[in-house]
Amino acid sequence: METALQRFLPPPEIVPERLHRAMRYAVLGGGKRVRPLLAFAAGELAQADPARVEIVAAAIEMIHAYSLVHDDMPCMDNDVLRRGKPTCHVEFDEATALLVGDALQPLAFQILTENVVADDAGTQLEMLKVLALASGSRGMAGGQAIDLASVGKTLSLPELEFMHIHKTGALIRAAAVLGARCGRGLGSSEFDRLERYAKTVGLAFQVVDDVLDCEASTATLGKTAGKDAAQAKPTYVSILGLAGARELAEELRAEAHAALASFGGDAARLRALADFIVLRRF
Amino acid sequence: METALQRFLPPPEIVPERLHRAMRYAVLGGGKRVRPLLAFAAGELAQADPARVEIVAAAIEMIHAYSLVHDDMPCMDNDVLRRGKPTCHVEFDEATALLVGDALQPLAFQILTENVVADDAGTQLEMLKVLALASGSRGMAGGQAIDLASVGKTLSLPELEFMHIHKTGALIRAAAVLGARCGRGLGSSEFDRLERYAKTVGLAFQVVDDVLDCEASTATLGKTAGKDAAQAKPTYVSILGLAGARELAEELRAEAHAALASFGGDAARLRALADFIVLRRF
Repeated sequence: METALQRFLPPPEIVPERLHRAMRYAVLGGGKRVRPLLAFAAGELAQADPARVEIVAAAIEMIHAYSLVHDDMPCMDNDVLRRGKPTCHVEFDEATALLVGDALQPLAFQILTENVVADDAGTQLEMLKVLALASGSRGMAGGQAIDLASVGKTLSLPELEFMHIHKTGALIRAAAVLGARCGRGLGSSEFDRLERYAKTVGLAFQVVDDVLDCEASTATLGKTAGKDAAQAKPTYVSILGLAGARELAEELRAEAHAALASFGGDAARLRALADFIVLRRF
Repeated sequence: METALQRFLPPPEIVPERLHRAMRYAVLGGGKRVRPLLAFAAGELAQADPARVEIVAAAIEMIHAYSLVHDDMPCMDNDVLRRGKPTCHVEFDEATALLVGDALQPLAFQILTENVVADDAGTQLEMLKVLALASGSRGMAGGQAIDLASVGKTLSLPELEFMHIHKTGALIRAAAVLGARCGRGLGSSEFDRLERYAKTVGLAFQVVDDVLDCEASTATLGKTAGKDAAQAKPTYVSILGLAGARELAEELRAEAHAALASFGGDAARLRALADFIVLRRF
């Protein structure tokens, strides 16, 4: 995955050099790569060519990386540490960080137009649509807006879930869908179960993130710990308490496994990933 | 065009409402719509269905509108007036302005995946690639980075041209290319001449912008006049003087007409547009 991301990013010696260096800084050398892992696992379910999955995984990771750069900016979360390194606007400057995000986003779409990821162009167009919808105001960017509006407010559990289904869930779902679309067409029932799995692990990911934000250290996380409470952000922990949030994560892990129950060995990686997402300590 | 943009923007009553209102604020009700005009004029040259051209023009205008919102932000040009109204971050707030740009960009790509603009999906994929390249670090976003790096520096005329070919030229060229791609395939010589025309009017547009920034009032422009000099930005006027810049604009207008010489009546709008771009007073 790291090699693929390197290959798709513009070389640092090409004009504008500083922007290209900053784009590489933001994407390379860090991150759990959960979305690529999910794309590969879903690809395995659909017997997809890993060379194709690598392409969609890179596109999704460009979108994810841009969202982190913009979210960390002073007018948003104003964070200085990400993946154990200074955030992009700290290492470079705010204007460059803004442009890094602005340029990573079309790079994602470019990757999906320059490389073959489906047997026919019509399917590839549909895959581009999945990525565009997941990134936009009804997906990730919209989730971020809902998050902004919720700071300092008391949210109900369904409201919190609604926010996360957009903010992180949309792109996580897209990773699973696009990984699978690289392979044989899944039947609609298979596809529904994969989507249910993706929705469930997406929520589980967020619940565990909230738990770790309370429990783990900044050094372990590579990003500032405890900032949800400091910013008075509603989280699963603020609503359910630590024990309640841990319990919910376990329930979601069981649900994710249940969604995969009728799949055979082709879902081995999807199962392992659900476990990783819930049991991780960073 | 205004009706088309309205139609493609998310309705303001859909969650997240504030983001959707801000997106509509940034796109609707203002602007010269030069890129759409160019797409329609190039479409006419290729006998394109105007219903298709409207779609690509809307996609391009979403990209253009997002770039204005981000360029006006405090960490970039820090401007408060655009199209005679408060800029997006002044009317809403910085975080919302950031998300408006972030969400308009995928909307542009979404529009080109949800609507048919070419006879086959393969051509449509190539059109998406044109838009992605024009928007990214080797196009518009890269031009913005070159612009940032040039503040307070003395640029040569070729260096200034290089910046503008990226910053505004890339998207202007894309408008012409995509408008034409909606219609019959142009021969490679016809296509070369259209691209030469687009490159020339793109530069002419910028030269005239620099002249108007010196000559016209804030009220006429609908944006802050005189800000190039105030920000010590290299411009055609700072390098060539006012008279020299006006002369260059006239030369470029003649060049644009020359590029169209062998085209017949199908290039009538392209000719009128070259005149409008150079002779406009706002």
